Amino acid sequence: MQSAHRPRIAIFDSGIGGLTVARAVRDRLPGADLRYLGDTARLPYGTKTAETVTRYALQAARALLGEDGADALVVACNTASSCALPALEAECGLPVLGVIAPGARRAVAASPTGQIGVIGTERTVASGAYTFAIEALRQGASVHGKATPLLVGLAEEGFFSGPLVDAALDAYLGPWLERRGPGAIDALVLGCTHYPVFKEALAAWLGRRLGREVALIDSAEAIADELATRFPSATTGSGATELLATDGLERFRRVGSGFFPMQGAALRLVDL
Amino acid sequence: MQSAHRPRIAIFDSGIGGLTVARAVRDRLPGADLRYLGDTARLPYGTKTAETVTRYALQAARALLGEDGADALVVACNTASSCALPALEAECGLPVLGVIAPGARRAVAASPTGQIGVIGTERTVASGAYTFAIEALRQGASVHGKATPLLVGLAEEGFFSGPLVDAALDAYLGPWLERRGPGAIDALVLGCTHYPVFKEALAAWLGRRLGREVALIDSAEAIADELATRFPSATTGSGATELLATDGLERFRRVGSGFFPMQGAALRLVDL
Repeated sequence: MQSAHRPRIAIFDSGIGGLTVARAVRDRLPGADLRYLGDTARLPYGTKTAETVTRYALQAARALLGEDGADALVVACNTASSCALPALEAECGLPVLGVIAPGARRAVAASPTGQIGVIGTERTVASGAYTFAIEALRQGASVHGKATPLLVGLAEEGFFSGPLVDAALDAYLGPWLERRGPGAIDALVLGCTHYPVFKEALAAWLGRRLGREVALIDSAEAIADELATRFPSATTGSGATELLATDGLERFRRVGSGFFPMQGAALRLVDL
Repeated sequence: MQSAHRPRIAIFDSGIGGLTVARAVRDRLPGADLRYLGDTARLPYGTKTAETVTRYALQAARALLGEDGADALVVACNTASSCALPALEAECGLPVLGVIAPGARRAVAASPTGQIGVIGTERTVASGAYTFAIEALRQGASVHGKATPLLVGLAEEGFFSGPLVDAALDAYLGPWLERRGPGAIDALVLGCTHYPVFKEALAAWLGRRLGREVALIDSAEAIADELATRFPSATTGSGATELLATDGLERFRRVGSGFFPMQGAALRLVDL
């Protein structure tokens, strides 16, 4: 256990996308020590069954916490957050924060109508995790999920905007919005850690389609705020960053640098 | 070992895409017994290191061959074919056929100019496996590789043609062809098992861009021809099909049915 003035925050993700969460946490808590593990050997989690995702998440958490432990474990991966939190809490014996609940709280606060969209991987959307969390917070809310898994690949290859991203949004969200009519949604949860990179493209695309603004809910910011409340001493200072991956360090560094400032961070391979 | 008149062919892939190979083999050798294993729990292989891919391929081959063995092992996965064949041959002690060599032979036969393009995953293209194979067959050939990994996701989600596929081809191949000028290539190897589903879209797109035909090289057909030569007795008859996957049977059946006729095939989960 770390002393109170220098909290250690462990962040787990299926791969590289969770670095958007690490970045938000680093920005809000510069004084925390961060250790991030991306299970790049076994990504993506989004198309795997809940049983497999839970098993992988437990293995990853053991490697990430090691013998030193941590003051909090952040599950940056939406897929793992949707199914593996109870098992992780039971095994790890420390605060485990998923991305679903903070995102749901933000969405409810940002949506006057309660008509809320959620985009994410197949598993995250099929789990109904955001739906349950949002409906628990606000009776009568209506949650509309849409799996948009290709956006993960687009983000990893550095396509954050442009014709290809717009074509993907057309293909995924065009018919989906049309079925719901112009009042469709007033908030859209970015229910996958990769998706914050599309904020600008999504805002522009939704503006063109709906002729008005839609609140884009970034769970990374929500979880960073929650950690800042828990560890106020770490909102100033200068902590260390250690990045672990289970495969492909070269790719991790190259792709990850689009999501997180890599300079000064220690990067090493772990085998699960 | 099977008797000569009913050969057993084992086919291994990182996931679902290799079903395009299984389909070509099934069409050419209806009398063979096919057993297919897709390592869906650990796909994609295309972004993993050669060491990890080889380790996974060996585990998969053990599960696929089991105690019954087979008469030939087909490595449908281009990524595994580019790095794991020697280890598989050493361990399995039976003919191991990758997709690279048959594809390279077809490409050389189809290319009068020797200007040959190869599209595939990052790992397949970076391995240079097609380049080495093609240059060994034809002195002075010029091989132009381009990683187009998003096409895997497009295929798995059933986008085989349309604006999104065209936008992906624009983004990947547009600048790549422009740099090479109008004489760029006269043959293009579909160096990833998923890619045969894009044949029509690719032919139309290349026709619009280049104003002429480009030969599209499908390794699945090449390997099926090679197996038909080795096992002529199986080119008639009616064999059994068994499909194994390491995760997500429901998704395997749903997505795979776009690549392979699933009816009548036994489908089961294996744990590696």
